[in-house]
Amino acid sequence: MEKLDYKYDLRDKRNLSLCMDFYELTMCQCYFDHPDANKIVTFDLFYRRNPDNGAFAIFAGLEQVIGYIQNLHFSDEDIEYLRSLGKFSEPFLDYLRHFIFRGEIYSVKEGTPVFPNEPLVRVRATMIEAQILETALLLAINHQTLIATKANRIVRAAQGRQVMEFGARRAHNFDAAYNGARAAYIGGVDATATVLAGQKFHIPVTGTMAHSFVQTFDTEYEAFCAYAKIYPDSCTVLLDTYDTLKSGIKNAIRLEKEVLAPQGYHLKGVRIDSGDIAYLSRCIRDELDKAGMQETKIVASNSFDEHIIKSLIDQGAQIDSFGVGENLVVSKSSPVFGGVYKLTSVEEEGKIIPKIKLSENIEKMTNPGYKDLVRVYDINTKRAIGDVLCVHGQVFDTNEDLTVYHPNNPLMNKTFAKGTYMVKNLLEPIFIDGELVYEVPDIEQIRSYCQEQLSTLWKEYFRFEYPHVYKVSLTKELSDMKIELIRKLRK
Amino acid sequence: MEKLDYKYDLRDKRNLSLCMDFYELTMCQCYFDHPDANKIVTFDLFYRRNPDNGAFAIFAGLEQVIGYIQNLHFSDEDIEYLRSLGKFSEPFLDYLRHFIFRGEIYSVKEGTPVFPNEPLVRVRATMIEAQILETALLLAINHQTLIATKANRIVRAAQGRQVMEFGARRAHNFDAAYNGARAAYIGGVDATATVLAGQKFHIPVTGTMAHSFVQTFDTEYEAFCAYAKIYPDSCTVLLDTYDTLKSGIKNAIRLEKEVLAPQGYHLKGVRIDSGDIAYLSRCIRDELDKAGMQETKIVASNSFDEHIIKSLIDQGAQIDSFGVGENLVVSKSSPVFGGVYKLTSVEEEGKIIPKIKLSENIEKMTNPGYKDLVRVYDINTKRAIGDVLCVHGQVFDTNEDLTVYHPNNPLMNKTFAKGTYMVKNLLEPIFIDGELVYEVPDIEQIRSYCQEQLSTLWKEYFRFEYPHVYKVSLTKELSDMKIELIRKLRK
Repeated sequence: MEKLDYKYDLRDKRNLSLCMDFYELTMCQCYFDHPDANKIVTFDLFYRRNPDNGAFAIFAGLEQVIGYIQNLHFSDEDIEYLRSLGKFSEPFLDYLRHFIFRGEIYSVKEGTPVFPNEPLVRVRATMIEAQILETALLLAINHQTLIATKANRIVRAAQGRQVMEFGARRAHNFDAAYNGARAAYIGGVDATATVLAGQKFHIPVTGTMAHSFVQTFDTEYEAFCAYAKIYPDSCTVLLDTYDTLKSGIKNAIRLEKEVLAPQGYHLKGVRIDSGDIAYLSRCIRDELDKAGMQETKIVASNSFDEHIIKSLIDQGAQIDSFGVGENLVVSKSSPVFGGVYKLTSVEEEGKIIPKIKLSENIEKMTNPGYKDLVRVYDINTKRAIGDVLCVHGQVFDTNEDLTVYHPNNPLMNKTFAKGTYMVKNLLEPIFIDGELVYEVPDIEQIRSYCQEQLSTLWKEYFRFEYPHVYKVSLTKELSDMKIELIRKLRK
Repeated sequence: MEKLDYKYDLRDKRNLSLCMDFYELTMCQCYFDHPDANKIVTFDLFYRRNPDNGAFAIFAGLEQVIGYIQNLHFSDEDIEYLRSLGKFSEPFLDYLRHFIFRGEIYSVKEGTPVFPNEPLVRVRATMIEAQILETALLLAINHQTLIATKANRIVRAAQGRQVMEFGARRAHNFDAAYNGARAAYIGGVDATATVLAGQKFHIPVTGTMAHSFVQTFDTEYEAFCAYAKIYPDSCTVLLDTYDTLKSGIKNAIRLEKEVLAPQGYHLKGVRIDSGDIAYLSRCIRDELDKAGMQETKIVASNSFDEHIIKSLIDQGAQIDSFGVGENLVVSKSSPVFGGVYKLTSVEEEGKIIPKIKLSENIEKMTNPGYKDLVRVYDINTKRAIGDVLCVHGQVFDTNEDLTVYHPNNPLMNKTFAKGTYMVKNLLEPIFIDGELVYEVPDIEQIRSYCQEQLSTLWKEYFRFEYPHVYKVSLTKELSDMKIELIRKLRK
């Protein structure tokens, strides 16, 4: 707890409690005035489609949700503002003034590879509490999950080469910059340029130099010398301010020979930011090698994404480190993570009544009920072989066959043979009765957990085009419940 | 000042000073150690391409930049963190601890339609000061300008019908949600669902009800009644939880007849959120009209953007109000505004030395020098007929012909005949010697200014496909300076 409070204090001094959709509050006023409608309910946060048509997403953003909930309160100013809207009763405003979240939240751990239509976060609380959380929960998790997922695609494309997140200036405002850097680090990038992200989240920070730096000095060589004087052991010079091959690389080699090597240092890197990167990188590698500078790394940056990086590597580009900006920080090719938050049950006189949202589109139908989520692993390969949604509390006996059903077509099913599989619960308790019960892992733990979990997936899920589709199924009990609910409502 | 301080206090309690790229600080360390390199310089913030291939962008985000600069300081914790990186000298850290921005900033006013390659913000300061601002300036303006521009496209498509911003849950984190709502309002939307944006920026807030609300009650009709009981004068009911035509609209009409009309109220609106919106909206309009409910509005929401809205209207959809979410709040079809920040001059012994960044790509060459930006209007039509960049301080005599030159091709020029044109300076003083000298307009003033400025553009600039290209030119003096600089550097 102490650790988390410290972290949270470091993170956000804003009161974000009113960062919600207005209808949450008008609906809450109605629940407040109809106390029997303000039941205990469950909501699931889930999504329907992977960004960039990938096979999975990387779940992230939970820590910021925890911080948000810990700080969730309506100040006097908030109440005054709400009063000024003329839509809320004094008793309801008084209730809000004293509002504390007392519900239960279970969630998948940050860094977990997740799949469409499974609950990532499960909230059980009064209707008012559940609605008050909705917007913040969605926006924090939608954003970071999007960026962690994109980062992982880019890191996979780089095949072990370093990837650095350089996108702050194109992020959608301040907290997209630093939380985006956090998510990118969870997804696997090696460092960020955003200093605040380094400070807040203990992520390595990195950078090179800007064109303006080179331009400010009378000559390119003077600029390189000025930098090398201060940072002789970590000097990466930018080559393309005037002419990469005719000027930049020549001055970089001269810097090594005349300034760095005589002092016992070596040029750490050179950076190219424009032109034909594949061609230039090969020429530069040649020149560096000829000059005996095999250890000097080549850093490239220039609107990269996973496809451009893959193509550069396929072309034999000699790049040791990729700086990635806008295509990562806004996930440009797929900038929306469509997480939704849907009612799944209502409790009446101690009984859980499952709820479903019908739709003309069968894929938009929700999976009803207060549910758990388990991941099934092959006992020999340790590979993940499917996720299963079940009624809350269901116990799996792995000495029995487990038959599971397609969420939208009960004719399709699949059996895990007894003794061949293991089951792991993916939803961890985060808040119980409003108390934080989760030991928040540090960022390195989250990042390693992500790597470890990814290693349980078959490589067919990592393809950029037409990856294999991972199966998310329902247990028989849940499938039967869903079918019955649909029949009842369709009548 | 008092007003602004109050606003700022309301806005951000975070210290965002370290929300910058790491290289800004390492370069600043170099400037600090090479005091003769820490010259007075000018930087221009400009962009190269309009989002969505439009003809213009709507400038926004300045107010948040002002707040950022007013709060710009490096706290003890910041210094401690920077020290821990082992890259900065104690004298430099001490300098940062006492850092105050003392430079000059000129900017285009928020709400101004702006065009590629013209300075939107001009910073004149020491190199260190100018670099420290870079990342924050870019990210705040890139984000809000993007969203204001997209909002204006969507509002234009709606042709006078109401547009509401509903996107918070898909925004890239909290800042993007509420600042995005602000930018959308500047760009012309009528209201937002994001309560915090309403509180901070005095934007009208609005909303309807969620599917979960309807599901919680035993029947759809009971849910409608519960809402109408609390909000009889502003009740908009959601029709598509079960079946829009078979159930939703029937219950809406019943609500009017049995509950609202007898009390002297009328149903304000109905909302559809799925299905074939064009068809459903016409059926619903018919039913409402037949029931004598001509005043009841139809609200629609469902992944709209400017093209879908235009298509719906072309099909005769009966929609009075559009709720727009993810396509607006992240500008999904064009999610990056590519503002850049480039060195334009360096002062040496009181002389201004213009600087240019060359590039293999002629469009990436910068316009050099400490410059002003004027907009030229036709004296009769009052229409904007071109923007002109000139050397700082140039006076225009409108009794003389004004010949201006294409920025990248001096063979192309254009003459405004004497007596036919007027000239308006677009760059306003914001900070002088670090002091705020700008009276920050309120949001309604910004929004009206935007409308007013848009009305000076010919309608050919408003097309979504192949809009007319607005001309941004250089004066003869500036064009000659640019040509000479290029020649000198190419030698």
